[in-house]
Amino acid sequence: MKNEIDVALLGLGTVGSGVHKILTRHKENFRKKIGATLNLTKILEKNLDRVDELGIDRSCIVSDFSEILDDPEIKIVVEVFGGLEPARTFILQALDKGKHVVTANKELMASHGEEILRKADEKKLDVLFEASVGGGIPIVRPLKQCLMGNKIEQVMGIVNGTTNFVLTEMSKEGCSFNEALKEAQRRGYAERDPSADIEGKDAASKIAILASIAFNSRVTASQVYTEGISNITPEDIAYARELGCVVKLIALAKEEDGELEVRVHPTMIPRSHPLATVDGVYNAIFVVGDAVGEVMFFGQGAGSMPAASAIVGDVIEVARNTLYGSSGRIGCTCFEKKDVKPIDEIYSSFYLLMNVSDQPGVLARIAKIFGDNDVSLASVIQKGPRGKNAELMFMTHLVKDKHLHAALKDIRKLPVVNEVCNVIRVEGAQSD
Amino acid sequence: MKNEIDVALLGLGTVGSGVHKILTRHKENFRKKIGATLNLTKILEKNLDRVDELGIDRSCIVSDFSEILDDPEIKIVVEVFGGLEPARTFILQALDKGKHVVTANKELMASHGEEILRKADEKKLDVLFEASVGGGIPIVRPLKQCLMGNKIEQVMGIVNGTTNFVLTEMSKEGCSFNEALKEAQRRGYAERDPSADIEGKDAASKIAILASIAFNSRVTASQVYTEGISNITPEDIAYARELGCVVKLIALAKEEDGELEVRVHPTMIPRSHPLATVDGVYNAIFVVGDAVGEVMFFGQGAGSMPAASAIVGDVIEVARNTLYGSSGRIGCTCFEKKDVKPIDEIYSSFYLLMNVSDQPGVLARIAKIFGDNDVSLASVIQKGPRGKNAELMFMTHLVKDKHLHAALKDIRKLPVVNEVCNVIRVEGAQSD
Repeated sequence: MKNEIDVALLGLGTVGSGVHKILTRHKENFRKKIGATLNLTKILEKNLDRVDELGIDRSCIVSDFSEILDDPEIKIVVEVFGGLEPARTFILQALDKGKHVVTANKELMASHGEEILRKADEKKLDVLFEASVGGGIPIVRPLKQCLMGNKIEQVMGIVNGTTNFVLTEMSKEGCSFNEALKEAQRRGYAERDPSADIEGKDAASKIAILASIAFNSRVTASQVYTEGISNITPEDIAYARELGCVVKLIALAKEEDGELEVRVHPTMIPRSHPLATVDGVYNAIFVVGDAVGEVMFFGQGAGSMPAASAIVGDVIEVARNTLYGSSGRIGCTCFEKKDVKPIDEIYSSFYLLMNVSDQPGVLARIAKIFGDNDVSLASVIQKGPRGKNAELMFMTHLVKDKHLHAALKDIRKLPVVNEVCNVIRVEGAQSD
Repeated sequence: MKNEIDVALLGLGTVGSGVHKILTRHKENFRKKIGATLNLTKILEKNLDRVDELGIDRSCIVSDFSEILDDPEIKIVVEVFGGLEPARTFILQALDKGKHVVTANKELMASHGEEILRKADEKKLDVLFEASVGGGIPIVRPLKQCLMGNKIEQVMGIVNGTTNFVLTEMSKEGCSFNEALKEAQRRGYAERDPSADIEGKDAASKIAILASIAFNSRVTASQVYTEGISNITPEDIAYARELGCVVKLIALAKEEDGELEVRVHPTMIPRSHPLATVDGVYNAIFVVGDAVGEVMFFGQGAGSMPAASAIVGDVIEVARNTLYGSSGRIGCTCFEKKDVKPIDEIYSSFYLLMNVSDQPGVLARIAKIFGDNDVSLASVIQKGPRGKNAELMFMTHLVKDKHLHAALKDIRKLPVVNEVCNVIRVEGAQSD
């Protein structure tokens, strides 16, 4: 058995500094736990001010990736750059040189996961990526190992802390989306350009990764139907409350009749659903399996140390595989090919809010259009009148997306309909 | 690579029948997932009526363990008998014969875990026991693998579904302990003799297992301080609600200054705590690590299929290790020896409910005794008078168990104190 395993780190940003901290702090402990010493011998980082700021000895800093690539002692490369390039190239080069890879890169794994994992499988190397979804929450390994006895039916997650903070703030403080977003930025939970989070792109990458694992079929981020939260209003949240629901940005993947549904959108879920109490920057992933039933994994979905916890867990796993000669033991698990249903064909229940003229016959005209388009209504609430107008809130039964949108197209043409204010899907009800 | 792995099952009870069902139902799927076929070739079960009832072909039934032991093709033995014997003997014999073991036996692992895991390590065999804690909830593997980068600070769980159902029922219906227990029995959530659950023994075994893993130091069930829930009253639950808390049977393990606290007792936890919303027969394990922060694992803690899900996950893990020649790769992780603190020395906050005579000076006399015994009070609520009596509810700051009980001994001697109705620990507050 080899007692020293050298590790290289690509990037000293938020997550990278956490990885450095854990590998340094618990070095002795890890030696006892796995029977080998993990040495972080090289760090690729060009910003030397950052290096000094973190109090890291400059002697292990390199500015050129080739110094890591050409070091035969380095067995594990940890990539925490984020973004597609140079991360993709560096990871592929590392694999070509026979080095294992641990990455937190959701964007990369959700778009080029197949290419990377195929190369890893060919070379019998490990590529682990627990930190790419849910920060510190163990979810990739539980799906790939612990829940293997199940046919997974559904994965439903709150996988973006920024949007969950914003929605929680709107719900608790009754404030607008913009006010809540500003508060998130003030606290450092949202970036200056928050669009990737707010528009659901970050969540889309994560659910693509989870769906690929859960359903053993490759799903890429581009296949995920994605809607953000910027059009959610305090009124929607108030109506949700009246309906016994909360509004969350839900990333969802289901298998039905051999086809997949993978989508990210604001969603009303019942207050009794385990995900409904997941507030603030916390994340949670709710999984339904045919044997295990409902399980949920909860924790901090972002931040330096939680993500670093996941990464170091992976590094230790790679080290164990190295020591036992079992590298590549759990590689790509996408051994099937399942189609991802277009959003048009997907059935959901919808909450709909409209502003209409307060005059006789309006509801009848709207209801007729719904009926003509195969949209069956579960309930209607009228509020108002406010001046000459009134608010109409509809809940539908399960309807096909395209039928709903055909109906809405006609409804919007009615002169008595001032505005279709919002359309939000409803999930997680007992009857689903 | 060997493409056929024979598995034997010991017992066809609730969990055993679930294991049989999954291994049969998903056989083809597992072949694709792991590259080998898992054949359940022998089942040890003496009750042939049970076999017929389950529709299982009698040809794979054996009545003598030696038929399994002496079958060289059987590589994995799944033990779901429960109880200490013959489970312990059979498992040790299986290991002696070079067979891997998967077990759901919490009682055995919590008392003889060291003996079994030591033998497995010597023989480089796998003994996996995910199903022994939390039913289908992945927790053993996440602790042993995903969270390895952490120094675990605390494990706090609702790990017994029966007691959680009883306490939830008392809380929701306002009924007595006995009424709630009857309802649990009516629904099949409690056994006819429910004492192992109600008295906390089942939870004690589970927290002993979790503590051993989390803190890398062997803890046995006999070292766990254990209190059951039979003395919890509707009044306690009402007071808890007033204090913003719920009452749960909490299994708790902490490390402080190199020493462990491991205990099971009814506990008031704030409604905002992630464990507070875990109701009914659901289980959850809340873990605090120095890097990951707070994570929680939620799901069904018992039942045929959830437990079988965990077992089959383990069987697949053993199969993968067999295929990759990495058996025994994660064995016993108790490489340290930490003392378990006696309950006397442990600091907790307490809720105390007393029935006293409604006359001047009573509170002063009680408060003096608390003060004389180093028990510092956080709050007092008086209710009543009811006739000649009143109720006094105290919350203490953190106090040593022995100081509290010394104070209570003196308080009980006061003629004005009719009864110390209950004493319940408080955990999980932000200030902890």
